[in-house]
Amino acid sequence: MVETTHPGNIGATARVMANMGLSELCLVSPRSFPDPAATARAAGADHILEQVKKYETLERAVADCGCVIGATARRRSLAWPLLDSEQAAARLVSESQSTPCALVFGTEASGLSNAHLDLCHAHLRIDVNEAFPSLNVATAVAVMAYEFRKQSGHPLPLVTDQKARENTMMKMGEFDQLIKHLERVLHHTAFLAGPRIRLVRKLRRLLLQGVQSTQEINILRGVLTSLEHALGVSPKDKPENKKTPT
Amino acid sequence: MVETTHPGNIGATARVMANMGLSELCLVSPRSFPDPAATARAAGADHILEQVKKYETLERAVADCGCVIGATARRRSLAWPLLDSEQAAARLVSESQSTPCALVFGTEASGLSNAHLDLCHAHLRIDVNEAFPSLNVATAVAVMAYEFRKQSGHPLPLVTDQKARENTMMKMGEFDQLIKHLERVLHHTAFLAGPRIRLVRKLRRLLLQGVQSTQEINILRGVLTSLEHALGVSPKDKPENKKTPT
Repeated sequence: MVETTHPGNIGATARVMANMGLSELCLVSPRSFPDPAATARAAGADHILEQVKKYETLERAVADCGCVIGATARRRSLAWPLLDSEQAAARLVSESQSTPCALVFGTEASGLSNAHLDLCHAHLRIDVNEAFPSLNVATAVAVMAYEFRKQSGHPLPLVTDQKARENTMMKMGEFDQLIKHLERVLHHTAFLAGPRIRLVRKLRRLLLQGVQSTQEINILRGVLTSLEHALGVSPKDKPENKKTPT
Repeated sequence: MVETTHPGNIGATARVMANMGLSELCLVSPRSFPDPAATARAAGADHILEQVKKYETLERAVADCGCVIGATARRRSLAWPLLDSEQAAARLVSESQSTPCALVFGTEASGLSNAHLDLCHAHLRIDVNEAFPSLNVATAVAVMAYEFRKQSGHPLPLVTDQKARENTMMKMGEFDQLIKHLERVLHHTAFLAGPRIRLVRKLRRLLLQGVQSTQEINILRGVLTSLEHALGVSPKDKPENKKTPT
């Protein structure tokens, strides 16, 4: 949950997560937590509140995730894949067999920002009545936790090279390093002059759709480092030096 | 809702009913309604609160209904049919085409009494985690309203821009030009020296997964052209000059 305003919604979320058998709640810059209102609305789901992980940025919160889905009320947002509740739950059920996954919900007033949505592999839009579309954030979590629980009952067949995949799945932290590296290289070209700076978002999206493994990240980092050498720029960080938060 | 204790739950119920396109809320002996806490949690679903019907007994509230389903946390209750969330929603969708239907939720503390459950045609038990089964009443309504909406066959017009998408879908010819352009740029770096030439295949694969539209191809071509300028190489072909086979 990102920048949640009302601690009561954090408590209600913890409660329905416990109801549906989920446990790992992460908060990014909540306005107030811990908070008596959260504890009250959790109605006994204290084990979830006690294990909450707090982060300052969404980037850090999802750094070890191989699949990040962000909830939005928008019908379309660039070319990000837009999933409905069933599709999103199916993807989470499937991906969570091999990698940590995150389902991200924004603030009560305005949801997730574009910058937050850019960190996601796909976006979720829960189908609602057009005339009254504003879902309470804990209600949105309830719907998804319910859908996830339903679909978890019918596990999808495992991919055969599951073990291999686990070891090599890209982590979001690695991906962020890649994008920062790409931006550094592009700053040595005329590409990022003027209005084109918006295009980095689109580059980010298409790379996020395409890149799946750490090996691929390293190939792209290798391309960027080669370009830096060719441009006469000294590389600032190397993949080997980078530590991912644990 | 029968003998609801917290008016906030009435408001939260009204809100999610509005979200999911439901409108008729009946209250049996609520402790406090109307109430500012209900109005606050309804978050604008005032039309539902204003049309609430209040009854003194559940018997009267469901008097005109041909199908009444009561929510319970119990696993069995004599010989009443016990439905899960999907079955209950399916029955309500089906029966509501020919008769008024009611879905009944009890008090926060103890749910529906045996006397209340006796008034129902069938009972509903939402599947929850045995270790933490106590669902908030508005959350239970949310789950059922969501399930009802799904089964009511509301079309999901998520891919409204299908036509637009067709017009901008990347063509494989464009993609091949992109890869050739990428190779040309990489030949001006040390990247393609030695065994690394095999990596172009992998770059191709990941770009193919990620790139979807002609616009994205053009962005990537722009990046490559900028790199060529920065490297002091003159671009050989520009996207504008290129003819794609039809």
